Amino acid sequence: MADGQIDFWFTMGSTYSFLSVMRLSDMERSSGISFRWRPFHLLVILQEMKHVPFADKPAKARYMWRDIERRAAMHGLAVAIPAPYPAKQSVTANLVAVVGMNEGWGPDFVRAAYRRWFQKGEETGSEPNLSSSLRDVGQDVGRVLALANSAATNDRLLAETDAARELGIFGSPNFAVGREVFWGDDRLDDAISWYRHGEVRRG
Amino acid sequence: MADGQIDFWFTMGSTYSFLSVMRLSDMERSSGISFRWRPFHLLVILQEMKHVPFADKPAKARYMWRDIERRAAMHGLAVAIPAPYPAKQSVTANLVAVVGMNEGWGPDFVRAAYRRWFQKGEETGSEPNLSSSLRDVGQDVGRVLALANSAATNDRLLAETDAARELGIFGSPNFAVGREVFWGDDRLDDAISWYRHGEVRRG
Repeated sequence: MADGQIDFWFTMGSTYSFLSVMRLSDMERSSGISFRWRPFHLLVILQEMKHVPFADKPAKARYMWRDIERRAAMHGLAVAIPAPYPAKQSVTANLVAVVGMNEGWGPDFVRAAYRRWFQKGEETGSEPNLSSSLRDVGQDVGRVLALANSAATNDRLLAETDAARELGIFGSPNFAVGREVFWGDDRLDDAISWYRHGEVRRG
Repeated sequence: MADGQIDFWFTMGSTYSFLSVMRLSDMERSSGISFRWRPFHLLVILQEMKHVPFADKPAKARYMWRDIERRAAMHGLAVAIPAPYPAKQSVTANLVAVVGMNEGWGPDFVRAAYRRWFQKGEETGSEPNLSSSLRDVGQDVGRVLALANSAATNDRLLAETDAARELGIFGSPNFAVGREVFWGDDRLDDAISWYRHGEVRRG
């Protein structure tokens, strides 16, 4: 690929994104591919689609937690689930993530927030998760929240959400190789294969 | 496992089930595990959930076809997609599949119907797919359709649909090891791992 990276499109309220968030730096090391973390606000797109992934579908939600539990175990990730869901203030977490990506501590913040959400039961985007995750990564809470609540950050999140929609994205996480989009943590290997070979090959 | 097999729960109108239907006998040979084919009528469950997987979600539908195309190529399966969707008479195909499973030619019929649907553009459950697929597997069309339309076959399909719902199934395809359900063609390896080890291990 010309730009030598895969875009990791994700939203902070997404459950399955936990699996990708927690293993992406290992994948980066083992594959030698760099991933560009791009938070967007999926809820806007879901509302446009009139689509609610799990909250009003108990059988699907039960399955989702069980599937995540089994796959977290496969990846050696500790989880205490079900985690609080849906995350009512995911927009705030996404805005903070945008600030963090701009300043360089974004991936660390996202990992801290997911760890607290999936391992300590602290809902992402709400307190105490938000401030504690910022402190976990050495950031001043007041300063970051002021930036997160600025018009510039909101515009940036909306622009990234527009870019995601324009790529055909409707869920999280996604891995984009140019305009080729792979949706779901379980498509990470497909995306890497596409990046390397221009096709999906068997692992 | 006590009963030495994995239940393959599927519905004939399902797009992603194509991938499983076409590769299951290879998996059976390479894994030494036998799969019990169990058609059910997913539409009933989706209607109860008020859930429409793709038909009213263009971005998701576009992605689904692209994802199937990439994964079919990975498995060496020819496809001409998008195939006609949704399949308006999937119930008829499911009823015929029930008759076929009872008489032993079920998996061959299901493969023939999917081949015609995904490779020749003949909508599954409707003509000419239905009669042609039956002829492909050496069955008398009139005899089978009379059996498919009997109350006994309908009762059997509803009973299997109840059993699927009771397992927490809400999509297709699924692989069940006892009561442990794995949803999606992309979870076939997870199901085989669970069958062998009682946990999902890395492939």
